[in-house]
Amino acid sequence: MVEELVGNCLIGQSGGPTAVINASVAGVVAEALNHASIEEVYGALNGVLGLLNEDFVDLAAESQQAIRGLRFTPGAALGTCRTKLKKPQDFERVLEVFKAHNIRYYFHIGDADSQETAVKIGELAKAQAYELRIIGIPKTIENDLPATDHCPGYGSAIKYIGATVKELALDAEAMGQGDLVTLIEVMGRNTGWLAAGASLAKRRDHPNDPPHLVYLPEVPFTNEKFLDDIRRVLKREKHCLVVVGEGLVDKDGNYVSVETSSTDALGHAQIGGVGEFMKDLVESQLSVKARVARLGITQRAAAHFSSKTDADEAFLAGQAAVKAAVNGESDKLVTLVRGDGDNYTCETGLTPLTDVVGNLKKLPREWINEDGISLNFQFFRYATPLIQGEVVVPYDNGLPSYARLTRESVDKTLPAYEG
Amino acid sequence: MVEELVGNCLIGQSGGPTAVINASVAGVVAEALNHASIEEVYGALNGVLGLLNEDFVDLAAESQQAIRGLRFTPGAALGTCRTKLKKPQDFERVLEVFKAHNIRYYFHIGDADSQETAVKIGELAKAQAYELRIIGIPKTIENDLPATDHCPGYGSAIKYIGATVKELALDAEAMGQGDLVTLIEVMGRNTGWLAAGASLAKRRDHPNDPPHLVYLPEVPFTNEKFLDDIRRVLKREKHCLVVVGEGLVDKDGNYVSVETSSTDALGHAQIGGVGEFMKDLVESQLSVKARVARLGITQRAAAHFSSKTDADEAFLAGQAAVKAAVNGESDKLVTLVRGDGDNYTCETGLTPLTDVVGNLKKLPREWINEDGISLNFQFFRYATPLIQGEVVVPYDNGLPSYARLTRESVDKTLPAYEG
Repeated sequence: MVEELVGNCLIGQSGGPTAVINASVAGVVAEALNHASIEEVYGALNGVLGLLNEDFVDLAAESQQAIRGLRFTPGAALGTCRTKLKKPQDFERVLEVFKAHNIRYYFHIGDADSQETAVKIGELAKAQAYELRIIGIPKTIENDLPATDHCPGYGSAIKYIGATVKELALDAEAMGQGDLVTLIEVMGRNTGWLAAGASLAKRRDHPNDPPHLVYLPEVPFTNEKFLDDIRRVLKREKHCLVVVGEGLVDKDGNYVSVETSSTDALGHAQIGGVGEFMKDLVESQLSVKARVARLGITQRAAAHFSSKTDADEAFLAGQAAVKAAVNGESDKLVTLVRGDGDNYTCETGLTPLTDVVGNLKKLPREWINEDGISLNFQFFRYATPLIQGEVVVPYDNGLPSYARLTRESVDKTLPAYEG
Repeated sequence: MVEELVGNCLIGQSGGPTAVINASVAGVVAEALNHASIEEVYGALNGVLGLLNEDFVDLAAESQQAIRGLRFTPGAALGTCRTKLKKPQDFERVLEVFKAHNIRYYFHIGDADSQETAVKIGELAKAQAYELRIIGIPKTIENDLPATDHCPGYGSAIKYIGATVKELALDAEAMGQGDLVTLIEVMGRNTGWLAAGASLAKRRDHPNDPPHLVYLPEVPFTNEKFLDDIRRVLKREKHCLVVVGEGLVDKDGNYVSVETSSTDALGHAQIGGVGEFMKDLVESQLSVKARVARLGITQRAAAHFSSKTDADEAFLAGQAAVKAAVNGESDKLVTLVRGDGDNYTCETGLTPLTDVVGNLKKLPREWINEDGISLNFQFFRYATPLIQGEVVVPYDNGLPSYARLTRESVDKTLPAYEG
């Protein structure tokens, strides 16, 4: 029998926003209110910064309408950040804040990298014998978390990418007098999940449909093969539509295109411009006109066109996190588990958070065809169910009407953190 | 009484695709089939290239389903081109082709620049006493055609831009720890209609909503004022969201950012990169992080999120063109005429094609506030009705299912054109 743990719960969002990260917040809030052992339901503003600075808001004070609205609102309603806690005193401070507010349940929505924070908070709580249950909720459009079949955020991103590729292909076909190369750059620092998702734009049994060439970080890039690929497609079609993941690497594992001048807050090199790099290559080596569409942050924000499957699963993951914690689980990540049947089904599972941190799930090599620039049926079988259904968004005067939280502050009780 | 002119009709598309240019084709086809005096309904492939090369397809042979599908399919189903006929023998050839196929009705869907072709064909036909009725149908996301209240294509483009700005604003707010400038670059070579349309993302009576700053080609740009504007907004908000039209100019009328190396097929300088120019300025002068989203061709192709008002008006314009021609009109452009009442209504009118060619409709200065970076109620009153309603697109496996024409060729009767 599970020991009842009575106290308050806290939700934090971390890393880049997605179209459905707020749906997970809605899932946590909706489920938390079902359990008497959870008293207050708080949100931490701007991820770990809110944990450090004791910046909490009272989510139970929000209207039901606002919480429901989170199911279709992009961004991160609680705010997020790219800061990563490193110093031991930072974690001491977080636990002090938790104790001050009797936080007994902490739900951390984030990618593999950011779940390390959850692991460390859990370890410190254990060392101090402070009873705390921590559950991670997966989130990333890049779909690179291990242990889960797929990640909330991915389905909506590739639904948008797939539709956009279809539309840009029609634009390119319309302009198709003489050779034209259209290069679409998508995100994906280390993996090709997003670039591969663009393949969903192909109709069933039309392998020659755009995108004609998909370049993945999993397949080392060479200029020579690239130019050969382009030549071959241009010979066959009126135009060539290319999709490329930003994290494309050469045979030595170096990014093909790095903006060397800048790094982000976590010290990652800012990559990008691989589309422009390819454009220069095509124009200089083949004397063919090329144009670049870099989808950028729109691909993680386009909630006017989210996958209902994805949004529902993000909500479900939030609910499952609360249920697990109330049932005595801790230091686990909620996973999405696909059923074995022919028809797609999905339920949630749990995996130790430590299995996830520092690990990365690449696109399986056996899902990529020999040619290195297309995906086989295994990828289509995997990805197609994830983009099914459309989230219905309410409109105000012709544009989506997204939810806003009132963010009623919780009183601070501690002196400001000096760091 | 109108003299009956019996013969075949031809439709051509010209210039950049839009989300609704095909809806005008559907309007022409649907209406043409109502009139016994119109025998065959042909489409010219790839705009004027099809006229020169006698590349016609039989649109009456297409399924009704395909023609209906054009009402929500982006791109240009007949193909388009950026070629402009210049030499007298080109026009002689076109008329020869028209005579060979007994073309008596020609419908030219295009922007102000491309309607010149229609004017010249009409003049030559008159000179040769070949009875031909020509009606232009307006098309451009840039909304810069004079004589019409607005252009088919514009409403859908600003609906997509408005939604995307809302979404990127939520993304930016979520990341808003410390100062962040988000720069969204939209199209608009000569006018700020598209950039202004981004303002629709503001909620009514929330002037401080994003976009915080809108830079229009109608207002000369200076680095100093720009940096002051940014400083002011960053002081007030956590972040600053900027929308800029690609055709921004300085006080001497020179583009702020020109990629000097390349020109397009019409000899226009390829502009672009004004977002990157601003990013460099912000980062170097203010030491503030900035990021750029260049919406590029997605803004003219995003039919998954078209305005129903716009798509319906594009269809209506196609129908009106046929009705006018059958009624004896020629050398006219179909215009959209807004009703005087408080509730938006729109019907079609006609204006001489010669009034349109070489003219450009700029955003009225009195619709822009004194500050030069925001729009007043006159713009909102004008633009809001144009984005109302959503086009319902059928889905296939989670993605929009767009129409494809079978493009059944019409037999050629003339020797190939040598040019």
